[in-house]
Amino acid sequence: MTAESSPLTIAQLAELAGVSTATVSKVVNGRSEVSSETRAAVEELIRRHGYRRQRRRSTPTALVELAFHALEGDYPVEITKGVARVAREHELTVGISDLCCDRTAADAWLEGVLRRRPSGVIAVFSGLTERQHEQLARREIPLVLLDPADAPARNIPSVGAGNWNGGLTATRHLLELGHRRIGIITGPDSALSSRARLDGYRTALDMAGVPVDPELVGRGDFLIEGGLAEAHRMLRLPDRPTAIFATNDGQAIGVYHAVHQLGLRIPDDLSVIGFDDMPSVRWAIPPLTTIRQPLAEMAAAATSMLLKLANGEQPPQSRVELATELVVRESTAPAAPPPA
Amino acid sequence: MTAESSPLTIAQLAELAGVSTATVSKVVNGRSEVSSETRAAVEELIRRHGYRRQRRRSTPTALVELAFHALEGDYPVEITKGVARVAREHELTVGISDLCCDRTAADAWLEGVLRRRPSGVIAVFSGLTERQHEQLARREIPLVLLDPADAPARNIPSVGAGNWNGGLTATRHLLELGHRRIGIITGPDSALSSRARLDGYRTALDMAGVPVDPELVGRGDFLIEGGLAEAHRMLRLPDRPTAIFATNDGQAIGVYHAVHQLGLRIPDDLSVIGFDDMPSVRWAIPPLTTIRQPLAEMAAAATSMLLKLANGEQPPQSRVELATELVVRESTAPAAPPPA
Repeated sequence: MTAESSPLTIAQLAELAGVSTATVSKVVNGRSEVSSETRAAVEELIRRHGYRRQRRRSTPTALVELAFHALEGDYPVEITKGVARVAREHELTVGISDLCCDRTAADAWLEGVLRRRPSGVIAVFSGLTERQHEQLARREIPLVLLDPADAPARNIPSVGAGNWNGGLTATRHLLELGHRRIGIITGPDSALSSRARLDGYRTALDMAGVPVDPELVGRGDFLIEGGLAEAHRMLRLPDRPTAIFATNDGQAIGVYHAVHQLGLRIPDDLSVIGFDDMPSVRWAIPPLTTIRQPLAEMAAAATSMLLKLANGEQPPQSRVELATELVVRESTAPAAPPPA
Repeated sequence: MTAESSPLTIAQLAELAGVSTATVSKVVNGRSEVSSETRAAVEELIRRHGYRRQRRRSTPTALVELAFHALEGDYPVEITKGVARVAREHELTVGISDLCCDRTAADAWLEGVLRRRPSGVIAVFSGLTERQHEQLARREIPLVLLDPADAPARNIPSVGAGNWNGGLTATRHLLELGHRRIGIITGPDSALSSRARLDGYRTALDMAGVPVDPELVGRGDFLIEGGLAEAHRMLRLPDRPTAIFATNDGQAIGVYHAVHQLGLRIPDDLSVIGFDDMPSVRWAIPPLTTIRQPLAEMAAAATSMLLKLANGEQPPQSRVELATELVVRESTAPAAPPPA
C-alpha cells in the first residue's frame, strides 16, 4: 500500500497494525490506555516507515519541561532560576520533574511529556535512554541536555561548564600558594565532569613537576558524606596533604567536618577548594574558596538554545561550554614551611 | 436584555461592552492584545453579571502551577519536592514561577496562568492581590496558599505550620537547659509566621516567670545578614544573652558567623536554635538544633487539597496546619553557671 520510505498517516498505521485509528492516535500522543504489545507494534511501524501528520499539530503548550535526576541542594534552584528567567521572557512556564530514582519514573514522566506537548525538554545531568530520545524526536519535541553526565549521543545539543579548565585552575591556585601535597576527592567515575576535573588536576601537577601520589587521589560521589570519609582517610596518612581539591562544594563541606572532627583548622592546617560556588558556601566558616560554575547562566543558555530549536532554527553549535572561574575566599592560604 | 443576576455569554458581554466577541474572548482567556480600558470594562461587566460559558471549557492542562516569591535556598526545593510527589501520582507536571520581585511580574505571570488553564495554582508565601484572586476564581482555577505571610482573604484554602507552637517549643528547650538571658531574632513584622514564633517565645518566657528584655528582641528579615547584624548587637551588650532563638535557619547561620567573628564558640559561649530544619543545617559546624517545619509534607498537603478542589470537591477544612517538631543537635547546651 505504501513504499517503505514514505511516512504513514494514522489511518495507514492503523491498517498495517490491525488496530483502530483511535489506538494509533493514543500511541502517537503518548496516552497510557494501550497494551504494551500494541504500543510496541505501532512504535515499530513508525520507526520503520515514519509517521506523517494529517495536518499541523496543535500549538505546543507554553511550557518548558525541566527534568532533574534529583531535587537536592542548591543545584536545582540555580538551574531553575536560569531557565525561569528566559522562559518568562517568552511567556512560558517551567515544568519541573524529579526523575529520581528509577527507570519507571522516567518512563511515566516521558508519557506525560508526550501528552503535554511542551515547547521543549531540558534534561539535567540524568541520561535519558536512546528509546526516549527517539520518542521525543519523532514528536518533534526538542531536547537539550544540561551538564550531561555522559557524552551526548546522536549529536543532541548540550550545555556544560569548562570542567577541565576548572580543575586545572583550582590545582594551580593551590600550587601557587606553595602546596605540594595536594589531595583530590573526585566524583563518580561515570560522570564526565568528574573525569575532566581530575584530568585538569593531573595536568596542573604534571606541568609543575609534582608527581601524582595515588594515596592522595580519593574517590568520592559528589556528596557531603563522600568528602567526609575521604578527607578522614587522607588526613590520617603519615604524610598528610596540606591542601585538598574537593571537586564540588558538597564534598568541600564534608572536608570541613573531617578537619573539625580531627581538631585541625582551615586554612591553617589544611587549605580546601571546592567547585560550583553554590550560594551557601559563601557562608561556610571560613567562607569557601571555590571554582564558580555558572549554573544559572548555563541553564539560561540551554533554554535559549531550546527555544531556537522549537522555532525550527538550528543553534550555531550543538555543544556550548561556559567558562568556570576561580573565586578566592578564606579557605585557602599559603602552605606552611616544612618543619625544620 | 438580561437580568442583572443571570450570567452573560460572550456574545451578550460583547454587545453590552460595544466590542467584538473576539475581544471579549481575549479578556476571558487572559490574552494580552486588549487595551487596558477595554479589559477593565469587560472585567467590570463580568464582575457585575457573571460569565456563562457557551459550552464546557476544554480539559485543563495537566499542570499544577507553583508560584514563589523568590527562588533562593533550600526552601523552594523542599516545597517543590512535596508538590512533585503528589503531582506525579496524578500524572501532572509542576510549573514553577518566580514572582520576584515586582507587581508587573505577578501580572504577567497571571496572564500566562489564565492562558495555560492549569489544574490549579499554589501560591507560596507571596500574596496575590484581591483582583488576581478574583480572576482565578472567575475562571474556576482553584488556588491554595502555602505558608502564607498574611491571613488569607475570602476564605481561600491554605496550609501552614504550627509556628506559635514551634516558638514556644524552641524557647522552652532553652529554658530547660537553664538559660534565662534568651535573645530572639524575628522575621519581618508583616509575616504572620514571624509574629506567631515571637508570641510563642513571649509565652514560654512568661510561663517560666522570665521577663522579656526588649534589648534581647532583635528584628530580622529571615535572611542570613539580618541574623548576623542582630547577633553582633546582642553579643556586645554588657549583659549578653547565653542563648539565641534565630526563628529561621538562615538567621541561625548569621548568628554562627557573628559568634565566630567575635572569637566565641557554639554552644560553649552561646546556644543557638533555628527554625525550618533545612537539609543543609545538619552540616553546619556544629550541627544546628532547630524546629522542624515539614515543608515537603505541607506542600504535599496543599497539592492534595488543590486537586480535590479541581475535582469539584470541597476540602474538609480550609486551613490546614502541620505540626512543628524540636530537633536537638549540637548547637544548644546547658547554660554555664553564673560567674561566682
